[in-house]
Amino acid sequence: MARNASLSGFPEWLPEERLVELHVLDTLRRIFELHGFSSIETRAVETVGQLLRKGEIDKEVYGLSRLQDEEAAGAKSDPNALALHFDLTVPFARYVVENAGYLAFPFRRYQIQKVWRGERPQEGRAREFTQADIDVVGDGELPFRYDVEIALVIAEALSALPIPDFRLRINNRKLSEGFYRGIGLTDTAGVLRSIDKLEKIGAEKVAELLKSELGATDEQANAALSLASIQTTDTSFVEKVRALGVTDDLLEEGLSELEAVVAAAVDRAPGKVIADLSIARGLDYYTGTVVETVLVGHEQLGSICSGGRYDALATKGNRKFPGVGLSIGVTRLVSRILSQEFASPSRAVPTVVLVALSDEDSWRSAQDVAAALRSRGISTEVAAKADKFGKQIKFADRRGIPFVWFTSEDGTHQIKDIRSGEQYDADPTTWMPAAEDLTPQIVVKTADAS
Amino acid sequence: MARNASLSGFPEWLPEERLVELHVLDTLRRIFELHGFSSIETRAVETVGQLLRKGEIDKEVYGLSRLQDEEAAGAKSDPNALALHFDLTVPFARYVVENAGYLAFPFRRYQIQKVWRGERPQEGRAREFTQADIDVVGDGELPFRYDVEIALVIAEALSALPIPDFRLRINNRKLSEGFYRGIGLTDTAGVLRSIDKLEKIGAEKVAELLKSELGATDEQANAALSLASIQTTDTSFVEKVRALGVTDDLLEEGLSELEAVVAAAVDRAPGKVIADLSIARGLDYYTGTVVETVLVGHEQLGSICSGGRYDALATKGNRKFPGVGLSIGVTRLVSRILSQEFASPSRAVPTVVLVALSDEDSWRSAQDVAAALRSRGISTEVAAKADKFGKQIKFADRRGIPFVWFTSEDGTHQIKDIRSGEQYDADPTTWMPAAEDLTPQIVVKTADAS
Repeated sequence: MARNASLSGFPEWLPEERLVELHVLDTLRRIFELHGFSSIETRAVETVGQLLRKGEIDKEVYGLSRLQDEEAAGAKSDPNALALHFDLTVPFARYVVENAGYLAFPFRRYQIQKVWRGERPQEGRAREFTQADIDVVGDGELPFRYDVEIALVIAEALSALPIPDFRLRINNRKLSEGFYRGIGLTDTAGVLRSIDKLEKIGAEKVAELLKSELGATDEQANAALSLASIQTTDTSFVEKVRALGVTDDLLEEGLSELEAVVAAAVDRAPGKVIADLSIARGLDYYTGTVVETVLVGHEQLGSICSGGRYDALATKGNRKFPGVGLSIGVTRLVSRILSQEFASPSRAVPTVVLVALSDEDSWRSAQDVAAALRSRGISTEVAAKADKFGKQIKFADRRGIPFVWFTSEDGTHQIKDIRSGEQYDADPTTWMPAAEDLTPQIVVKTADAS
Repeated sequence: MARNASLSGFPEWLPEERLVELHVLDTLRRIFELHGFSSIETRAVETVGQLLRKGEIDKEVYGLSRLQDEEAAGAKSDPNALALHFDLTVPFARYVVENAGYLAFPFRRYQIQKVWRGERPQEGRAREFTQADIDVVGDGELPFRYDVEIALVIAEALSALPIPDFRLRINNRKLSEGFYRGIGLTDTAGVLRSIDKLEKIGAEKVAELLKSELGATDEQANAALSLASIQTTDTSFVEKVRALGVTDDLLEEGLSELEAVVAAAVDRAPGKVIADLSIARGLDYYTGTVVETVLVGHEQLGSICSGGRYDALATKGNRKFPGVGLSIGVTRLVSRILSQEFASPSRAVPTVVLVALSDEDSWRSAQDVAAALRSRGISTEVAAKADKFGKQIKFADRRGIPFVWFTSEDGTHQIKDIRSGEQYDADPTTWMPAAEDLTPQIVVKTADAS
């Protein structure tokens, strides 16, 4: 990043940085569409009631009020007050319920939008940032196979980005909750909340929390921590869990679901997935598969892609719309790509050719040359002033434009590659640049990035 | 539009409607980049002080406060309080000043983002909507020729959209202000504000306003209204203004600038431009060229593209960054395209092929078929359940997927076009759909739309 944001937590990119972000966004869009996901956007604004519908959340929400509205104070407690969305899953669930009559289920969508959280900004955590989500939502039921598919699509999408190697760390809420129940800990939400702090505060303090806040015995706390310590790159976690000697129906269901996801991933995305039984996903709305993702060597950046299965987020009376989805933290990834220079554009501007002016009256014929080039997809600008040619070439050079076009009074055309200095005759109706000069290319810089 | 927004003023699109919006956005991006404009985004959030920097504005601004923050009330009067941007020009000016050291001038950028205004929603006026802006900003000076260029780029961009014919109505603030000064009306901002109401309240009431609020004589009011009544499709407006017998240096400068824009437009975008001396652009920051745009036959929709020249919006000490730009109201246009059915997609989903399952164990080989198709850019889904083939075909039909792929136990492949019923042998490594089936096509429906 060239400079700091003028408002902490609200990053902005220079044009050449934006090209890297656009490359990331275009790549994700291409892969999501290749897998049959439709694009939608939801409004950035939800009612407070909608955002807080699932009860307590650990996100800081930005409320809205019109500056000209004298009565805005106190509106926070009003569930109809407006606020900015803090993720794309809650708004998507609302959209599905509202538009159920117009959607074909299972409904597959991707959604790439900004979200806002009023949290303390720090590296990798902004107050305004872009997320790229894919979800599949069913009407009434949603086959478990979509949990597998979503993980594979995301592994393919992340593999196509100019980032270092990554690992999807996958767990299953049924597995955890069944296990806790099996050892006699019934406040499973409380246990999950404590286990979620494992990386931050360590096993010893989590054990203390379990004992002091949830009344766990030493044995129960140890068992919960033993479960959370299991990490395998294949389906061997099943045996390790069984070795802990706990039996519970929900645990069995979670084990077989997680086994199916990990088995498919080992087969189709080898090396990209870990069964990690410490993953909890805080206060969120997940009911089965849960996923977090780390960049290898950049673990302190936090999760770059999270999500899971939610069976009860979208409901309309008795009708349920269970879903599964994952969300890529685009801004977090792009910040890291830029700060570590994993990728950069071959030039800063889309422009391939600057058409020079020989005199002020040539502006009209220069426009004709430009139109002929653009008709073949060649980005072209016309000089605004008939400065000396040297000055016009300098202008192109300063803006990073690789070619300058000259038309002499007798109507002959020449083009100059200002990088090599080479100049040759060219026809505006046929000339084409090399393929790699047609648009700015994203150059991947480190062996570390894929 | 299939249904009403669940929150008035905050429109959302169904997936097939979103395809139309994406077509509009992709078209604009392609044309802006062909003309050498770089993409940037600015944060959605600005300080109140920044938004209100130019004094009085006639936009309703949404302020932000964290729901968890007890002291948020009263923050409105704080210039450091946060608010959502109401356009993309004011944030762009701030961005240019902050990043001047990193930009190559004249800096050409496009910016496609949502903006928010807390106004009373009505047809064509939403509270959250997308704008697509192009601007060129210079360091110290910006040749007038860019005013001409911006108008031509926008005419080309609008011509590429599935909308009816349009007219850019162009005026020049120097012309108006010079004329008012020439007839002795010195509160030019006040006169512009009154003239801006012409279409809403009519000539008679504007004359009353000029007299009662600005102390104009009958003669002055009549002269101002005579100027505003001039509309020509060529440069003949110059004579008509001269015939009013007013002389002023600024008026002359404005006349020659507007003449240059209109002359170039008549030449390069024939029929798309009107010199319309009633265009005022309210309380905005414009100092020269001003533009509004109407859809022919849909004038009551309001301007679909507005903007102009601003010489004093971006300043850093003594350094000035004059600019010129235009802003397309994407949401306003897309709403009209959808409600009038000017265009619709050939299908609702990106998916070309559904790979059917012959039994549950075939999921793995079905994934191989899908991967082979996707590697050639063919959007493909795999069925989630090994239902009877008839049910799997119905599934594809319901989602609008045109082809279903079958693999028999002996490994032979067949593909069925479920629209025609035709079924034939196919090889997953070579089969390609017809070009028009590869991605959803936007079908332009009326002779009225281009």
